[in-house]
Amino acid sequence: MTRVDLNCDLGESFGAYTIGMDEKVIPLISSCNIACGFHASDPEVMQKTVCMAKEAGIGIGAHPGYPDLMGFGRRNLNVSPAEAGAYITYQLGALYAFARSAGVRIQHVKPHGAFYNMAGKNYALALAIAKAVQAFDPELILLGLAGSESVKAAQDIGLPAAREVFADRAYMPDGSLMPRTMEGAVIHDEAEAIRRVVRMVKEHKVTACDGTDIEIIPDSICVHGDNEKALTFVTQIRAALKAEGVEIAPLGEII
Amino acid sequence: MTRVDLNCDLGESFGAYTIGMDEKVIPLISSCNIACGFHASDPEVMQKTVCMAKEAGIGIGAHPGYPDLMGFGRRNLNVSPAEAGAYITYQLGALYAFARSAGVRIQHVKPHGAFYNMAGKNYALALAIAKAVQAFDPELILLGLAGSESVKAAQDIGLPAAREVFADRAYMPDGSLMPRTMEGAVIHDEAEAIRRVVRMVKEHKVTACDGTDIEIIPDSICVHGDNEKALTFVTQIRAALKAEGVEIAPLGEII
Amino acid sequence: MTRVDLNCDLGESFGAYTIGMDEKVIPLISSCNIACGFHASDPEVMQKTVCMAKEAGIGIGAHPGYPDLMGFGRRNLNVSPAEAGAYITYQLGALYAFARSAGVRIQHVKPHGAFYNMAGKNYALALAIAKAVQAFDPELILLGLAGSESVKAAQDIGLPAAREVFADRAYMPDGSLMPRTMEGAVIHDEAEAIRRVVRMVKEHKVTACDGTDIEIIPDSICVHGDNEKALTFVTQIRAALKAEGVEIAPLGEII
Amino acid sequence: MTRVDLNCDLGESFGAYTIGMDEKVIPLISSCNIACGFHASDPEVMQKTVCMAKEAGIGIGAHPGYPDLMGFGRRNLNVSPAEAGAYITYQLGALYAFARSAGVRIQHVKPHGAFYNMAGKNYALALAIAKAVQAFDPELILLGLAGSESVKAAQDIGLPAAREVFADRAYMPDGSLMPRTMEGAVIHDEAEAIRRVVRMVKEHKVTACDGTDIEIIPDSICVHGDNEKALTFVTQIRAALKAEGVEIAPLGEII
Repeated sequence: MTRVDLNCDLGESFGAYTIGMDEKVIPLISSCNIACGFHASDPEVMQKTVCMAKEAGIGIGAHPGYPDLMGFGRRNLNVSPAEAGAYITYQLGALYAFARSAGVRIQHVKPHGAFYNMAGKNYALALAIAKAVQAFDPELILLGLAGSESVKAAQDIGLPAAREVFADRAYMPDGSLMPRTMEGAVIHDEAEAIRRVVRMVKEHKVTACDGTDIEIIPDSICVHGDNEKALTFVTQIRAALKAEGVEIAPLGEII
Repeated sequence: MTRVDLNCDLGESFGAYTIGMDEKVIPLISSCNIACGFHASDPEVMQKTVCMAKEAGIGIGAHPGYPDLMGFGRRNLNVSPAEAGAYITYQLGALYAFARSAGVRIQHVKPHGAFYNMAGKNYALALAIAKAVQAFDPELILLGLAGSESVKAAQDIGLPAAREVFADRAYMPDGSLMPRTMEGAVIHDEAEAIRRVVRMVKEHKVTACDGTDIEIIPDSICVHGDNEKALTFVTQIRAALKAEGVEIAPLGEII
Repeated sequence: MTRVDLNCDLGESFGAYTIGMDEKVIPLISSCNIACGFHASDPEVMQKTVCMAKEAGIGIGAHPGYPDLMGFGRRNLNVSPAEAGAYITYQLGALYAFARSAGVRIQHVKPHGAFYNMAGKNYALALAIAKAVQAFDPELILLGLAGSESVKAAQDIGLPAAREVFADRAYMPDGSLMPRTMEGAVIHDEAEAIRRVVRMVKEHKVTACDGTDIEIIPDSICVHGDNEKALTFVTQIRAALKAEGVEIAPLGEII
Repeated sequence: MTRVDLNCDLGESFGAYTIGMDEKVIPLISSCNIACGFHASDPEVMQKTVCMAKEAGIGIGAHPGYPDLMGFGRRNLNVSPAEAGAYITYQLGALYAFARSAGVRIQHVKPHGAFYNMAGKNYALALAIAKAVQAFDPELILLGLAGSESVKAAQDIGLPAAREVFADRAYMPDGSLMPRTMEGAVIHDEAEAIRRVVRMVKEHKVTACDGTDIEIIPDSICVHGDNEKALTFVTQIRAALKAEGVEIAPLGEII
């Protein structure tokens, strides 16, 4: 039976600031990426979010970001591979502590925002991240963009890797995401986006921006839970996948 | 044979900023308290410091502080017990990750500066800290001021506790440290300070500021390594203790 | 004609995080306190908020806080008077730059949260704040709790001071606010709260928690704009004051 | 008479952390760039540094950096022009407040580290910076790399601009600095470096890395004061310039 994971960022609130509709999206997903205090979140938010994820039984992932709270970790920052590795270890450990204290395991690591994007295109950075994860726990899964340097680096060192796809993003002929600065980068037609997801999962194919079909193998689909529209979209993706006989399962049961 | 631990704060550098003479003090101590990024340190400094401590074979402690880098964690901050617990878990986990990735264990936890001082006098805060440590790993040792609420809270919940004394500080008749704002709080006569340390270790007694002798049982002596004078002082304490037949050993071999 | 100012905190959003309904509360108030980046806000938010306040023609105040973003500046932090003064100067200057660049003046300074509360009870801290404001611009108004050390310190050095009252808070017989930890500290009956505000403004009297009437002279009433209920409450206060012939005016036209 | 400015970064200490030998370099320079709290410094350090600069009578410059304390503002960060402008305004205002409170003026603005480097190559970023400075005070001087986009943008909008050269760096044939990652980027022969500086100042020429002479007009020479070797180098540059009849003067007397 075909299986796929639905992952969503959680625990991005910070102090007096609230972001996300975590309670509402949790029942719709199979894995979550929990912010670790560098680009978002704080210790109390992490603790609470780990408990919510544990209770729901979804796979828990560390979501380490750049130390850029003001920019929410979305701005490219030129960190060295050594810095990148240390930032991963630090944040992974912080989340691990909340998980261990709550009696639950960490399933995967997915770098956040600009960290994710830069590692996806920079093998040295990706390798430093993969090595940091492996040094901490060689059974953790690295979740990276399908076809990216992140997945390649993890595979090269024998770290379990999971390939992520995006439902609402256009792909370049080489399998990379069309940059958001380009016209057509985001697919606004939800029905079309869902058809693409189903095809990626079932046929391992997606139509790139030049009209050609490219191969793509999705272990996990990235979804969002920060507004009502996003929640509706996730609900529709779930329904479409189930109607096609696809089982939604956490990464740990797939990889 | 009488044994005691010598502990020192390490790894307080941050980014381009350097503090401490870590390489020089490491050979003189048996345990270290490594800053965890809230009041001092950063991920790369933590990584490097853990490796230095591992190589030297000294006991490794987490040294979590208040989130007050500008004040070096020395300013009282009115955190709730819930916040305190989460701050401990976060920082302990971060240090744990570097230790685990380096293949070495964490021996103890010692809160830093104002966090240490406030917990020493506030049972609710001390209890939250002890519970956070215990939830993560019930075998970790909490290092607190001898006679303080920190030690009491750890003992109350069955968490291993170690009692710390200060060589260069005067004691109040109730066993608490004389506040630094009071005349005579710091003992500047090094020979006198060393005699007091030896007596604390050998006889479990110290003369309080009112001239009376009080009982004090030291598991660990706090020393400093941030300047040449401090290093000389530690060297002298070591020599005096050894001359008296006291063995210097990490906390983990004492508690 | 009796006049009073209505002031509200604005510009507390930060990076990807949004707090407050600034657009909706601005038409209801005569002065605003704009966060300056230590406890909340960031440079872009400050810039935007100054422009909104300028366009609305309301009095602009700097709202400096403790460097505690994670705690939103609400936690007591034991800063020295020297630190307090420097924190005021820094944040006041930052806001001043946005005001000057937008061609508008700063009217007042109101410390935020725990900074406000601690200064209100600590003359040395209050004096350091007042001196920092005066050194920058001796015509700025310091907005402090009516009857507090903040107002006293400003008056002592000849800095214009404005007295603030709270519509929804109970007062102790000595004129201080009843601590939030005490039963009855917040007045939940809105009609009652509004009657109290009108009486403070018109008669300079309020009934303290022990039933006695105490004198209180309000230059400004603190209101909130972070939810619909708060907005309704401000609207009602405005209406009640106008019905009683009280004019709402910025602090700069009152002091 | 030929005149040139010698500028040096000052006030980079932070909290318990000390960097730089500010007291020793101040007598050797004519202008300083004072860190503003984003990449280094804190309010008390800024206050103290402004007072030291005032007492010495040297020109005071704001030295705004990226919000990256952990990386000391040396890592490229992909900020938008709007963010860049707001960061400049915020930090310039903060320093202005200390200067105004001390009764002294700000002479110039020089972005720090990666902010300086990125603006030097990106006209949109440079323009946002120049506009932010001009909106605050159109008489302030922008200090940028000679031949860079920073100088060009300032000139384009009529903001006074000063051209900076580096004594110990090699130049590319197009007048840009040879990247530090390239062999030969730093000139270690001090006598050679001093000869180059004198020639730049007197003849407006420097030999690029390909052996050709290029034109370069220095208004200010960047020097360092963070170690004894650097101090000796500055002393030698001063002596060489004076021996050649060049007067050392603050930017404000040159531009």
